This record gives sequence, C-alpha cells and structure tokens, in this order.
Amino acid sequence: MTNPLERLVRALARLPGIGRRTAERIALRLAYRADDLLLELTSAMGEVKEKVGVCSLCGAVTTVDADPCSLCTDDTRDSSVLCVVEDPGDVTALERAGGYTGKYHVLMGKISPMSGKGPWDLRLKDLVERIDREKCRELILALNTNTESDATVSFITDLLKDKKIKITRLALGLPVGSGVSYSDPVTLERAMRGRQAV
Amino acid sequence: MTNPLERLVRALARLPGIGRRTAERIALRLAYRADDLLLELTSAMGEVKEKVGVCSLCGAVTTVDADPCSLCTDDTRDSSVLCVVEDPGDVTALERAGGYTGKYHVLMGKISPMSGKGPWDLRLKDLVERIDREKCRELILALNTNTESDATVSFITDLLKDKKIKITRLALGLPVGSGVSYSDPVTLERAMRGRQAV
Repeated sequence: MTNPLERLVRALARLPGIGRRTAERIALRLAYRADDLLLELTSAMGEVKEKVGVCSLCGAVTTVDADPCSLCTDDTRDSSVLCVVEDPGDVTALERAGGYTGKYHVLMGKISPMSGKGPWDLRLKDLVERIDREKCRELILALNTNTESDATVSFITDLLKDKKIKITRLALGLPVGSGVSYSDPVTLERAMRGRQAV
Repeated sequence: MTNPLERLVRALARLPGIGRRTAERIALRLAYRADDLLLELTSAMGEVKEKVGVCSLCGAVTTVDADPCSLCTDDTRDSSVLCVVEDPGDVTALERAGGYTGKYHVLMGKISPMSGKGPWDLRLKDLVERIDREKCRELILALNTNTESDATVSFITDLLKDKKIKITRLALGLPVGSGVSYSDPVTLERAMRGRQAV
C-alpha cells in the first residue's frame, strides 16, 4: 500500500518552488480539518483545467472562450511593436509593471541543449509569420539574462537578419532599490557599459 | 466572472509556506500542458481526504483503517514514556531523527492568547487520562522554543504537579553543524547554562 499522504507529498513536490519539506507541511495541513481548503483547491484546479487555455496568437494565458486573448484583441495596443518573452508568467509581470502598450509573443521556453530543447520547440514559426502579417517595426526581446537566453537572442537575431525590423533587448543594469556594493561584478560591468546621460 | 487562474492562486496562497508569487508560479505551471500533474494532485488530495485521519489515541497522522495508529499499537515501544508534541508533523520529524522508543501525544497546538487558543483547545484531558491509564513515569515535553510554547510547558507542569511523574524538556543549545559566532545570544546563554561534562 502506498501511503496516501506520501503520494500527495510527491505530487506537491513536483510543483515549482516546492521542496520536499514544504510539500510535507502542506500535505499535513491538508490532512487535518482542512476539508474546505481541499475542496476549494480541487475545484479551482478543475476549473483551471476546464477553462484556462493558451492564446493561439500570442501564447499567453487566456480562458478557452476568449481566444485570441484580451491583450491580442485590444485595439488600443500598438501591434507594430512585439515583445517576445519566454514564459506566459513574463507577460503577467510586464503587464503588472505597466508602461508597455505593444503586443506580446510567448516563445514557450528558450533554446536549451542541456534539457534537449532546440529552436524547433519554440514558437518561432508563429513569430516570423506574425512579424510579416502585422508589419512589426520593433521586436523587443524581453528574455531572461543567462547564457541560454542569450543564445536564444542570437538565434532570433540571426533568423530575422533579412527583415527590416528593429530588434532591441531589455536594459541590463542595477535593479531599482539595490546598491552598488550589493551587485555582482557582471551586473556592475553591464550597468557601467550601459550608462546613460542624466 | 472570477478569473479561474486567480481563484486557484488564492486557494494555493492559503497553504503554509506558499506566498502570492509562488502561488502564481504554481498556478501558471498547472495551467499549461500539466493535465497529468493536475490529475495526480486532485486524485492524491481526494485520497488524503478519504483515507487519512487522526489517531484517536495519540493524535498523529494515520489512515482511517488503522486507528489507533501503528506507533500506538507497536508493542516494542515503551508506553511508560510519553513524548508530548504540538503538531502531527513533529512526530514525523522525531521519528525521522530516530532514537526515541516511547509513545507520542499530539496536543494539536499550543496555548496562544493572540490567536484565541486556550488550554481547553488542546488535547490535555486525553493526556491526563493517558498518563493515569498507561502508568507513565516520564513525560517529555518536546514543544517548540518560543514564548507561547513556554507558557504551554508551564501550564502542563502545573496541571500535573500532584502526579508522580518525571517531566522533562528537550535540551536547548547549539544546533549541530552550527558555530558559536552564528548563534543568537539567547541560544548561547542557554547552551552555556546547560553545558555538560565531556
């Protein structure tokens, strides 16, 4: 007999940001007088499974009855600027930050030879088609700042080298609220190189 | 319409150790091509709800078809020594540490005026009855080390002052693997006071 609690712990530990110990705490919390929470979680997960989907145009989160998503169908947004991100969560983060009024395109990952992910696993064909169809004039590569993302940036730049499109990346530098002495050398070097007139 | 994803985020954020951001990451992970994980979680939670219960004797985690639990019915364990803990998870932690061969009694919390929890909310009546019935000679109060737990220790000691039973607490001192200069003053003071001959 597999212990039901152990089974739940293992399932929980597969979630991002949840280690073995946290999974144990959660499982114990759910095992004791937590019927309402268990019910709410099960029902909310069922609703997500049923109603939440991927926008067929940009790849961001949307409900199955709203495809393309509200960002794609928003006519007040500038469709000539396209912001390319790795994951759907990045769209949420950028929208929360505000200030960007163009459209998005989610790659669904990055080129990662270590985990067997190549360019063909990303939504690049869709990207090229969109650029042509929507007559984009600027592509903002809002990818993360690590080696694999850098490789993805290179690949995309190379892929689009014959198109008349401006390709930019997010600025590298000090995070707001941080200090010079707390920053790592690579960040400092990039911040120095990208210094701007005040 | 409540957003299904937002609903799941709120339910997840009610779990211990899960903040808003982690809940968002998990919800997004579950929204994308994660049908097998969603199914496994839902099913594991259902099984926990159905099969996992509380041991009517000690209060630890057990399956509903094994009550009293395997620790309580284990005849090789010394029932004259009773280890009192706050939460079911503490039993798991102590069993993982090994070395203890007595029985357990879970209080289900501690005295906490701030959250409206008094002695009557703890499994103290059961404790007194067990001490008499099982002729305990030692009670180990394996409670946490904070003010509310200290108050609970005082209350229990006072409650049992007429009984002929040895009451002990876990040793206070430096955690194994830690150093003197990393320890807080209170811990160091307790470690000094509780120093032992080598």
